[in-house]
Amino acid sequence: MTAQPQLTETRSVTDTMRRIDAWWRAANYLSVGQIYLMDNPLLRVPLQPEHVKPRLLGHWGTVPGITLTYAHLNHLIMRDDVNALLVTGPGHGAAGLNAAAWLEGTYSELYPHVSQDEAGMRELFRQFSFPGGVPSHASAHLPGSIHEGGELGYALAHATGAALDNPELIVACVIGDGEAETGPLATSWHAPAFLNPATDGAVLPILHLNGYKIANPTVLSRLPKDDLAAMLRGHGWRAVEVSGSDPFEVHEAYAEALAQCLADIRQIQSDAHRGIRSRATAWPVLVLRTPKGWTGPRTVGGRQVEGSWRSHQVPITDIRSDPHRLAQLESWLRSYQPGELFETDGTPAPLVRHWHPLGARRMSANPIAHGQVQRDLNLPDWHRYTVDVGKTAESTRALGGYLRDAMVLNVDSLLYFAPDEHASNRLGDVLDVTGRRWQLPIEPNDEHLARDGRVFEVLSEHLCQGWLEGYLLTGRHGLLSSYEAFTHIVDSMVAQHAKWLHTSMDIPWRRPVPSLNYLLTSHVWRQDHNGASHQDPGFIDHVLSKRPEVARVYLPPDANSLLTVADHCLRTRGLVNVIVAGKQPAHQYLTADEARAHCEQGLGVWSWASTDIDGGTDVVLACAGDVPTQETLAAKDVLLELVPDLRIRVVNVVDLGRLFSPEQHPHGISDREYGEIFTRDKPVIFAFHGYPWLIHRLAYRRPGHDNLHVWGFHDYGTTTTPFDMCVLNELDRYHLALAALERVPRLDGRIGHLRQELLGRLAKHHDHIRRTGEDLPEIRDWKPRRTE
Amino acid sequence: MTAQPQLTETRSVTDTMRRIDAWWRAANYLSVGQIYLMDNPLLRVPLQPEHVKPRLLGHWGTVPGITLTYAHLNHLIMRDDVNALLVTGPGHGAAGLNAAAWLEGTYSELYPHVSQDEAGMRELFRQFSFPGGVPSHASAHLPGSIHEGGELGYALAHATGAALDNPELIVACVIGDGEAETGPLATSWHAPAFLNPATDGAVLPILHLNGYKIANPTVLSRLPKDDLAAMLRGHGWRAVEVSGSDPFEVHEAYAEALAQCLADIRQIQSDAHRGIRSRATAWPVLVLRTPKGWTGPRTVGGRQVEGSWRSHQVPITDIRSDPHRLAQLESWLRSYQPGELFETDGTPAPLVRHWHPLGARRMSANPIAHGQVQRDLNLPDWHRYTVDVGKTAESTRALGGYLRDAMVLNVDSLLYFAPDEHASNRLGDVLDVTGRRWQLPIEPNDEHLARDGRVFEVLSEHLCQGWLEGYLLTGRHGLLSSYEAFTHIVDSMVAQHAKWLHTSMDIPWRRPVPSLNYLLTSHVWRQDHNGASHQDPGFIDHVLSKRPEVARVYLPPDANSLLTVADHCLRTRGLVNVIVAGKQPAHQYLTADEARAHCEQGLGVWSWASTDIDGGTDVVLACAGDVPTQETLAAKDVLLELVPDLRIRVVNVVDLGRLFSPEQHPHGISDREYGEIFTRDKPVIFAFHGYPWLIHRLAYRRPGHDNLHVWGFHDYGTTTTPFDMCVLNELDRYHLALAALERVPRLDGRIGHLRQELLGRLAKHHDHIRRTGEDLPEIRDWKPRRTE
Repeated sequence: MTAQPQLTETRSVTDTMRRIDAWWRAANYLSVGQIYLMDNPLLRVPLQPEHVKPRLLGHWGTVPGITLTYAHLNHLIMRDDVNALLVTGPGHGAAGLNAAAWLEGTYSELYPHVSQDEAGMRELFRQFSFPGGVPSHASAHLPGSIHEGGELGYALAHATGAALDNPELIVACVIGDGEAETGPLATSWHAPAFLNPATDGAVLPILHLNGYKIANPTVLSRLPKDDLAAMLRGHGWRAVEVSGSDPFEVHEAYAEALAQCLADIRQIQSDAHRGIRSRATAWPVLVLRTPKGWTGPRTVGGRQVEGSWRSHQVPITDIRSDPHRLAQLESWLRSYQPGELFETDGTPAPLVRHWHPLGARRMSANPIAHGQVQRDLNLPDWHRYTVDVGKTAESTRALGGYLRDAMVLNVDSLLYFAPDEHASNRLGDVLDVTGRRWQLPIEPNDEHLARDGRVFEVLSEHLCQGWLEGYLLTGRHGLLSSYEAFTHIVDSMVAQHAKWLHTSMDIPWRRPVPSLNYLLTSHVWRQDHNGASHQDPGFIDHVLSKRPEVARVYLPPDANSLLTVADHCLRTRGLVNVIVAGKQPAHQYLTADEARAHCEQGLGVWSWASTDIDGGTDVVLACAGDVPTQETLAAKDVLLELVPDLRIRVVNVVDLGRLFSPEQHPHGISDREYGEIFTRDKPVIFAFHGYPWLIHRLAYRRPGHDNLHVWGFHDYGTTTTPFDMCVLNELDRYHLALAALERVPRLDGRIGHLRQELLGRLAKHHDHIRRTGEDLPEIRDWKPRRTE
Repeated sequence: MTAQPQLTETRSVTDTMRRIDAWWRAANYLSVGQIYLMDNPLLRVPLQPEHVKPRLLGHWGTVPGITLTYAHLNHLIMRDDVNALLVTGPGHGAAGLNAAAWLEGTYSELYPHVSQDEAGMRELFRQFSFPGGVPSHASAHLPGSIHEGGELGYALAHATGAALDNPELIVACVIGDGEAETGPLATSWHAPAFLNPATDGAVLPILHLNGYKIANPTVLSRLPKDDLAAMLRGHGWRAVEVSGSDPFEVHEAYAEALAQCLADIRQIQSDAHRGIRSRATAWPVLVLRTPKGWTGPRTVGGRQVEGSWRSHQVPITDIRSDPHRLAQLESWLRSYQPGELFETDGTPAPLVRHWHPLGARRMSANPIAHGQVQRDLNLPDWHRYTVDVGKTAESTRALGGYLRDAMVLNVDSLLYFAPDEHASNRLGDVLDVTGRRWQLPIEPNDEHLARDGRVFEVLSEHLCQGWLEGYLLTGRHGLLSSYEAFTHIVDSMVAQHAKWLHTSMDIPWRRPVPSLNYLLTSHVWRQDHNGASHQDPGFIDHVLSKRPEVARVYLPPDANSLLTVADHCLRTRGLVNVIVAGKQPAHQYLTADEARAHCEQGLGVWSWASTDIDGGTDVVLACAGDVPTQETLAAKDVLLELVPDLRIRVVNVVDLGRLFSPEQHPHGISDREYGEIFTRDKPVIFAFHGYPWLIHRLAYRRPGHDNLHVWGFHDYGTTTTPFDMCVLNELDRYHLALAALERVPRLDGRIGHLRQELLGRLAKHHDHIRRTGEDLPEIRDWKPRRTE
């Protein structure tokens, strides 16, 4: 292994570098201890097999780069009183971050049983990757973290989102060279095209090229240096290189480089304040080249480990059974000279103890990372944007007015994100009061571009999601509008975010952060013009596979219900709210009061559309989603035309969580309530926005579920008419009417005739659209009717 | 609108340029016709409202760049007899590609009713984005296409995959500047680090900077030119710029630039054949800057359209109701001088007619694009790699031997892909016969890197998936192994691929291509060391939401069943096969013959583990997945220990498709068969690998489904022991045993005592792992026992 630098060496090192190095060694010692030890943390006695954990779980390779960076950022913070946040892409190196938080005292403040002494050090070691302890990754348990890092790709996007509207903040972002190969990270380099040096904080990427991922060299580390610098330069960054394997040489270079980066950042920011902008003055990115697993065992069993992918996880294994390896581990631990770093009682020695920023300046204690810095959202009264019942309106356009005024009221804590769809999603009113964020050249014919615009549009769902997550996790508010089908692009990101939120619920020092709000418009039933690739309603299935404590899905049927649902979602914290609402002109069913009452209830009987007021229901027509609601109401009309005395109950569902049992989801209603709404024994024809099995899943254990028949999407779609999209999936009014009639026993004698009639109408539709390219007038001109 | 170039102009244009321009104008005319016209295709009479489609659906903005590129690629193909494939990222410009295929005659060959005459032209126009016609995107219906382009991000990865092992091929790849903002596309630029100039074909990216996406300028088009060139240079590409808005200036520059690109490619390839490689000789990328919606209306209603985002979709709307706009459309169409381009009978005029490559050299008729060039896979006998029953083995390691020998037998048509997990997934034996693909510098300590390696490892699920898709769509074979949780990263890609496969089933000239095979190892139950972010079994839910005609999911319980399942999957075509199998040491239950019979059946009773041979079943223990199978067999042992006379039936499910009804899935079994296996009225305790509702969905309509109780994953996980992962989600042997006992009526009197016993064992486990960090010896040492 690399010999540790000796303080007694006769070399020219300043006291500062000595302290940085000591702190680094302490953090490394504590990291190795976490991976290996369950006892004897200070090596008071020679290391014995029983001091070593039986299962060795952790990742060493990235740790020394993380601890080195932490030490040098601390130096910078102390020197210039910087407000810094650290996003660690290689979050699997959490041992290094735990160590830093413990050395800074934060760990013991937040977890008193992990005290800053020998007993606490033992607990710090033991709990790591241990049952009942803390995970091996930078999870929500970790003080100072807003980023788990288990799934690679999002570090730079999270860091960018955290920097937005935080002009005082420097967000340092360690990017592993493995992560740098991912798509989301690759496009995250475009941040300089969006980050506004006058009103945002700065992102300082630290691209840590240790050369290897799990089992391979990395692309970026093997690029010719000029190529890497050119690649970064092309995205608007200037590479500042620090490389080496001699600790003190690296310390000196790193300290100098970081100081230069900070000076450059301050210069860019102060220039921007004075109206001076030049892409030629690029943001700095620190490129750090140090060996993977640096200061760890150089070889194990004759094979190179330090400076190779073999140091990725646990460099020396089989410690308990192999005395030679046990000795190697002890020697490795002692190479950090723990006696110099810790007092005999385990507290950090004076050389290390005070070598960190104080209070909230500690990156492990930055209140921004813990959701402690939040502004409440001021929201306008949504009633001002409502649409009259009976009119045709684009639901999302009504919402656009509300969002516009919400923006005016929250100019420093609310942002909207869209992958190039903000205006096409009918949210254009927002652009009356703010612009689209843009730092690249603006040309005369451009519209609504602005250096400080508060609408972020980039054709990357990953960036929209990652930026928004970073913004939310640091206590601000936002909305992401997107095509429904393409939210699958961020399936994995939302799953990770939901896990983070769920884990955070049990962590008292984390304040719940504003919810992640999606507006999915351009949904499956209204992508008749774009065709099959744009038609997929499965994102809500995915979101509802996450913990019910955090997952919410709403399907408001019209503009007024969209307004009240959106208003509700924006006020919540700690959730993932998915709202699905169309942008096409559509019917309006509910007054503001009706909409509020209905959406608060989450589901209910629409008596104004039902004919079973005196009981004796023949059939229940249930629906969720705007298009299924339209087709259900039209099916009701068809049914009453054919069978005027049919007793129909219309049920509309807005909040899918209501369909769960109360034991399954906090929004779940009781079986009694369920039975009162859906009846206990009548056929229910449920027209659903998404895949039908989701409704079956939610209502699986309900009384009478054998009578529940769900129509939904079956991946039958192409470029066609809106009504034909329904017909292809048998969700149209005629198929729904037929499904209902077939399940009413008293109509058995007439069903052949009725079926003929409905199939005839479908055939007429089929012929008409193939001849004319549009739906029949009777479809287009249909209007909802009240049965009262 | 831009005045069309006049052939009579007194300018120096060669005959070649005149022909290129005429062909381009013809393709543009045909494109506009498709977007707008349903009659009067040759403008024989003045345009009337009824000639125009009532619903205008299509995307004009990108079309002139696509048709221009097509025209110039054709020129190159004819000049140098190039075997070229075209991947069009902006596939929403399909009208331009339809036009090209029609001009080349391919369209009429494959769709005789779209003949190359006036009637056919009318049909070409009418069917576009029309009910019963063809979609607005470059779907599988489009001759020559392997890429739909509806969801942006994957064009360059598909093109790269198509080029692999196709040394004669040039894959031209149009990349829109919108798409270039996506993450997957951004990292796709790293192709030069993997593409081998000696054995692969070449990719020629054509980055089309028309400046705008749907509603915004694009990042890449606004980057300073030097920055863009630097960005590309950094990834290993040399930018060759062509820009302008004067057609003939652009034609001359484009022709020259393409010729230069081809010469550069040939030079790089011939150098590589002679062993000369230099990253300094970078692959060319053509950067094309032409106006969005070029040659379309310059302004509409006083607002700029050509050269702006407003040309993205349909530049002039309300044609039927506004005579002025009708006239503007007619004038636009006539600006292409159709009389010069088409004979009076609608056939292409001589100026245009023969200006395209012939036969299979037509990009619209390249047999590679239609799956017509395929090699059958030679597969070794999987019996040679089997593992003895009773042993402990890593299932995927056994598969590694099989895959190694499969590679030897198919050295030019089989590739393996993994996001840096090939070796950790225990497939390392493959590296005995081939290397990992790598074109960047190789250092002395590197292992298994090779210029022509056939294992592709990059830390990007998007690239692995995209490259594999491109490889499969051009008729070759492959396997992607990945962490189960992180396949969610490509949720959207697999959905699009499944749709492509499903659409292709109805297209006779497309031969079914080899299946997309996933091996999901490092699965949810064995990510105890990495924690919550690595634990998610939902990918199979997502795949099974796609059309049952193409979706397959297998959960082989041991090594021998993994071998036979993998062997089966590799032999299939046209499917998405997902195999979930662990890489950790595990028990082996089935001999080769048993495994084959069981996996062919897809599910069945394991009589060797059952005690109900004489009938009178008390309870059915069903399982799917390796860990659930282990816990089920252990639960059976626990049950027999506690209640020796309990009549247990053990059922194992490998092929989830079997659980569907036959009407729902081609693999579905009848209700009779289902009842024979699961019984009709006995309690079934189903231990499932994934989310429990998937099993409920599959078996929802089965007789006796009220007796089906599913245990699965509930998003409870962290860094802990393997057994504790099961306990946290109540999928362990004790919870399963308790669930069984509680449902056997004859045990009612003893259930209190039995419950105490099992909860006691769970408490003992809990205490032990929290004290020692590992599972109890009785858990670790458990071995499956035969009941016979």
